[in-house]
Amino acid sequence: MKKILVAGLGLIGGSLAMALRGFEDFEVVGAVRSQATFEKARAMGAADRLTFDPAAELPGADVVILCQDPAGIIAFLEEHRDRFKPGCLVWDVCGVKTAVMEAANRLPRGVDFIGCHPMAGKEVSGIANAEPGLFRNTHFIVTPGPEATAEHLDLLRRMADWCKFGDVIETTPERHDEMIAYTSQLMHIIAVSVCDNDELFSCQGFEGGSFRDCTRVAALDPAMWTQLFTLNAPALTKMAAALEARIHQYRTAIENNDREALRAMLAHASDRKKRINLERARGDDVRPSF
Amino acid sequence: MKKILVAGLGLIGGSLAMALRGFEDFEVVGAVRSQATFEKARAMGAADRLTFDPAAELPGADVVILCQDPAGIIAFLEEHRDRFKPGCLVWDVCGVKTAVMEAANRLPRGVDFIGCHPMAGKEVSGIANAEPGLFRNTHFIVTPGPEATAEHLDLLRRMADWCKFGDVIETTPERHDEMIAYTSQLMHIIAVSVCDNDELFSCQGFEGGSFRDCTRVAALDPAMWTQLFTLNAPALTKMAAALEARIHQYRTAIENNDREALRAMLAHASDRKKRINLERARGDDVRPSF
Repeated sequence: MKKILVAGLGLIGGSLAMALRGFEDFEVVGAVRSQATFEKARAMGAADRLTFDPAAELPGADVVILCQDPAGIIAFLEEHRDRFKPGCLVWDVCGVKTAVMEAANRLPRGVDFIGCHPMAGKEVSGIANAEPGLFRNTHFIVTPGPEATAEHLDLLRRMADWCKFGDVIETTPERHDEMIAYTSQLMHIIAVSVCDNDELFSCQGFEGGSFRDCTRVAALDPAMWTQLFTLNAPALTKMAAALEARIHQYRTAIENNDREALRAMLAHASDRKKRINLERARGDDVRPSF
Repeated sequence: MKKILVAGLGLIGGSLAMALRGFEDFEVVGAVRSQATFEKARAMGAADRLTFDPAAELPGADVVILCQDPAGIIAFLEEHRDRFKPGCLVWDVCGVKTAVMEAANRLPRGVDFIGCHPMAGKEVSGIANAEPGLFRNTHFIVTPGPEATAEHLDLLRRMADWCKFGDVIETTPERHDEMIAYTSQLMHIIAVSVCDNDELFSCQGFEGGSFRDCTRVAALDPAMWTQLFTLNAPALTKMAAALEARIHQYRTAIENNDREALRAMLAHASDRKKRINLERARGDDVRPSF
């Protein structure tokens, strides 16, 4: 029997371990650090087996999945670089990829690291919130290094399929980080910025779907998102500056009561949104499901 | 049999007419302007009866509900001011209240106008998208004038109950407009501003739930939102300026790699979001359902 080692059983790691149970002829071993996570993971049946000692498992692990926070992933790669099994596949789940791929460059030859980002999540963290269906119909982004083997990429796709991801997107670490700055990190900056308004606690009764949707992700983990934001500072600050400038343009048009300009700006954005909705609807039809 | 006249059968008016059918001993009459809306409303059974001539219906209408766009509501009040039945209840569905209440001040004495805002909607408009369940568990905001009768307020609450609104919130037009600038209008400014980014069409495959949620309302009706924004300019521009400033603070902390400041800001906002989630959960238990 082959072995998958999932290092770190939080929301993502716990969900992945559960989702991967029964995959081909692999045993799923979960590595935890706290007694509380151990107890909870055992009660939930989160893995075939649990351990406090990843170092002892690494030499026999055919697949290693790193599910700690960004600093934890980078530290694990450094601490255990010489314990990985030659020929094994290592992948991670970090929301930034350039910094992680740089750390993985220091692994020995023959250890195949493929950067991954399962675009799934919740506003709550920890094993208690993990569930095997978390990845259903979400994107699984993959940033293979130049030496990634076709065999490992195929294995990764089979795992993604088993976990019910909606699709697998291959790209470069740099492109991933630019796109994620826009589609994910900026949405979190917006959500926390909206929640910093004095009226947050007095607006009850006036909130509709758009307010709930926009602020949903504000209940984030401050330590983890501090890491994610600062590890992707150039791309994210560029996106934030563009957003500030555009909100400022809308504000100016409203202040000046310039209805023609405002209407033209709104029509432009609304058309773009409708076009992307249509493109995505078409894309869904033809997208390979793996 | 008494009569409710619903003037304007778009998304909101059409949904209200459908939801109100069967309410007590009222006939629901829908006033439309285009042949296309007439045909669609008839096919959907949107009202007990349809008309192209609201002027002929007004003298016999006990309740009049104005469901046009903001300029249409204000124009209707001016055009028909002397046709309303003495003692009738008139209410509207406009997303700004101060400007509408001012226009309603010119109605004859004995016509009881109560400003309303059903906080329901969709990203698509028109009778074709109307549905009687649109208001289920949403807020129904009411801004009564100083001369609103208790009898009419009670009638309004019974209608809200019949339409399955989650609650009825009474407030002033000024307070409504401040709160809506924050909870609704600002969310629409954010959504269109995000969609104006060059990467909108290249980010497919990288978008998660937060991006879909935040941009959902960008496919808005430019003419209507131009009216809503400019009719509420002072409150909205204040909210937009505060948001710009806060995003700028996050950007500066990230640019400076000031992790301590960033972490403190994120912890502050995240705590606020968690507190408001808890307060809302408690509030739901005690809120009268009407």
